[in-house]
Amino acid sequence: MTRPHPNYYGAGPALLPSEVIEDAAAGMVNYQGLGIGLGEISHRSGQATEIINGAKNNLKQLLDVPDTHEVFFAQGGGSGGFAAIVYNLLGAYAKETGKKGKVDYFITGDWSKKATDEAIKLGADVNVVSDSRKFTDNGKFGVIAPQDTWTFSDPKDTAYVYYCDNETVAGVEFPETPKIPEGVELVADMSSNILSKVLDVSKFGLIFGGAQKNIGIAGVSFYIIKKSLLPKADVATLRKLDIAVTPSFMDFEIIVKNNSAYNTVSIPAVYVVEKVSEQLIKKGGLKVQQKEAEEKAASLYAALDAHKKLYNLPVAVADRSKMNIVFTIHGEGLEDKFLKEAAAKGLTGLKGHRSVGGIRISNYNAVTVQSAELLKDFINEFAKQNE
Amino acid sequence: MTRPHPNYYGAGPALLPSEVIEDAAAGMVNYQGLGIGLGEISHRSGQATEIINGAKNNLKQLLDVPDTHEVFFAQGGGSGGFAAIVYNLLGAYAKETGKKGKVDYFITGDWSKKATDEAIKLGADVNVVSDSRKFTDNGKFGVIAPQDTWTFSDPKDTAYVYYCDNETVAGVEFPETPKIPEGVELVADMSSNILSKVLDVSKFGLIFGGAQKNIGIAGVSFYIIKKSLLPKADVATLRKLDIAVTPSFMDFEIIVKNNSAYNTVSIPAVYVVEKVSEQLIKKGGLKVQQKEAEEKAASLYAALDAHKKLYNLPVAVADRSKMNIVFTIHGEGLEDKFLKEAAAKGLTGLKGHRSVGGIRISNYNAVTVQSAELLKDFINEFAKQNE
Repeated sequence: MTRPHPNYYGAGPALLPSEVIEDAAAGMVNYQGLGIGLGEISHRSGQATEIINGAKNNLKQLLDVPDTHEVFFAQGGGSGGFAAIVYNLLGAYAKETGKKGKVDYFITGDWSKKATDEAIKLGADVNVVSDSRKFTDNGKFGVIAPQDTWTFSDPKDTAYVYYCDNETVAGVEFPETPKIPEGVELVADMSSNILSKVLDVSKFGLIFGGAQKNIGIAGVSFYIIKKSLLPKADVATLRKLDIAVTPSFMDFEIIVKNNSAYNTVSIPAVYVVEKVSEQLIKKGGLKVQQKEAEEKAASLYAALDAHKKLYNLPVAVADRSKMNIVFTIHGEGLEDKFLKEAAAKGLTGLKGHRSVGGIRISNYNAVTVQSAELLKDFINEFAKQNE
Repeated sequence: MTRPHPNYYGAGPALLPSEVIEDAAAGMVNYQGLGIGLGEISHRSGQATEIINGAKNNLKQLLDVPDTHEVFFAQGGGSGGFAAIVYNLLGAYAKETGKKGKVDYFITGDWSKKATDEAIKLGADVNVVSDSRKFTDNGKFGVIAPQDTWTFSDPKDTAYVYYCDNETVAGVEFPETPKIPEGVELVADMSSNILSKVLDVSKFGLIFGGAQKNIGIAGVSFYIIKKSLLPKADVATLRKLDIAVTPSFMDFEIIVKNNSAYNTVSIPAVYVVEKVSEQLIKKGGLKVQQKEAEEKAASLYAALDAHKKLYNLPVAVADRSKMNIVFTIHGEGLEDKFLKEAAAKGLTGLKGHRSVGGIRISNYNAVTVQSAELLKDFINEFAKQNE
């Protein structure tokens, strides 16, 4: 059961390495000769524990996770994370300080906007550090607001600062980890760019994301948390402070204590994470991957920039995502034509997010250099014929 | 990629039909000739929508779900459901009545105990209808308390009555749907016996469960809800009434509005549900399955009952689960010997839950008649040699 490499650029669930997918598919039928498959073995069996530990250890190795931090897996995807962060981190802050902390959110695209709305809904005292829509001509997302405009809460009262490192819909990526007030915990949604670049995990209180872009399939999310943030105030204290109580299946401390198997974690999904990360280690790790991602992105952006009469790139150059390259095409019907002609060449998954339209190239780790080249050639060719 | 039928009796994640697993594995590599697999296609693609609708419609057909009810899928498993029910159904009750409703819980085993604890933790006003441990000699689970001992809250103030239809650890199953005060919504955890018997869905406000026993793999849960329970009071009202606000990714109304794809639902997991239910429709539906389950269970219980000196069955006969047959073996070392000799014959997954020990046979739909026969023969043979 092998397949030719797909030239697929969808934003997520996204393409994964064919060898990993083929391996996982075989394991779904009969894992390690057990006679039953990855979806059927107990999540507490020795085999499942090995898979969970394997995935954890691979991520620790790739990201050089310090001993101060722990890696775990949960359900609920990115949106589940939006809620889980509020519960858990306000609980941890209350444990440490006896207070309900304020929370600071960067709004840089649809996903951080959703996370902000969720925090407000769940009763957090939210301060918006900056809303990128105030910094573009058309009031849409497309830039990271200048650092000197960021307004943080008093660090003495702040439970955490939240940002989305890469906005999959808007195509905006923080060029570097944002500098925030000292002593405040930094929380990052890295759903769509984790494992695409070298990272200094020690800077973060929490990194999280859905697995279904760079590292796996839907059904599991990854978390990298500073261990000191695991203990939470007791329920009575939380109630007194008007902090929403964490549901058990989203309780980071409970999940870590149970090695990610408190709730029935999807072992097939964790297995894919284990194999994707294993492959990346063999490839040479995140330095190699970062260089490749940057080169692929640079080549695609260069092709688009070379034909500005045709292709319109809305994102500020410094804040362009290396993962999600978004653009529109001037001229009636040309976007449809682009998608149709690309599909005819086997280049698929290029339609922009339904909320913004246009074209979106997702340049995740599984998109090979060859695949990016093919697309770049098509971009040039299409320009030649339609400019 | 085919496999011999496994004689596996694990409690969950559990055995699934080999044809379904083989089909899903092929789909993981290349689904419908798209060139990419089930874990890689967008959860909003036409193919994914067809899979979600297919699974929904199959469940509706099998369970004869009336138009008053809706089927949907979510993340979080059974434990996620324990929390989601509190949020959503208290919210719905507040919308309808302007009040915070009381909630009534049957405690009949580990799972309903966990659900009860979760409701208390999340601030619900919990009344325990009955605690089965008060009705056994050893204070352990093993019986459904007699109906005349059940104590319900005033039906005028009750948001819902909760019970677990089949307790996977204790091996206790309600012989029939419990009779509760008229006008009160009935909520059932059917994680481990859904699709094992004919059901009158119209009696229920909500039926839910993790998929990973009778109907699929981990990573997705199923819900069947009365549509009138979807709208919830607004956040301000909930706060005023001291009701915990529903996180968006667990909000039944939001999930239904987005046809189970608000959050990135695991399409491979839903695909397995679609195929398992499709196969069951072809087999003749729930009447056929119920008869088969009853016959398999009766045959296994009869073999165990025939050797009472050796096998100890702790559950009251009337309340014995047809899905999870639990017993211990008198005599030192005999349980280990039983497990070892069974494994040598290829009969696996028989170890009891780590919290109670002993032996557990899970008799889910994918355990064939032949597989149950093999185990029955082994039970008899082992008795002959060790009694």
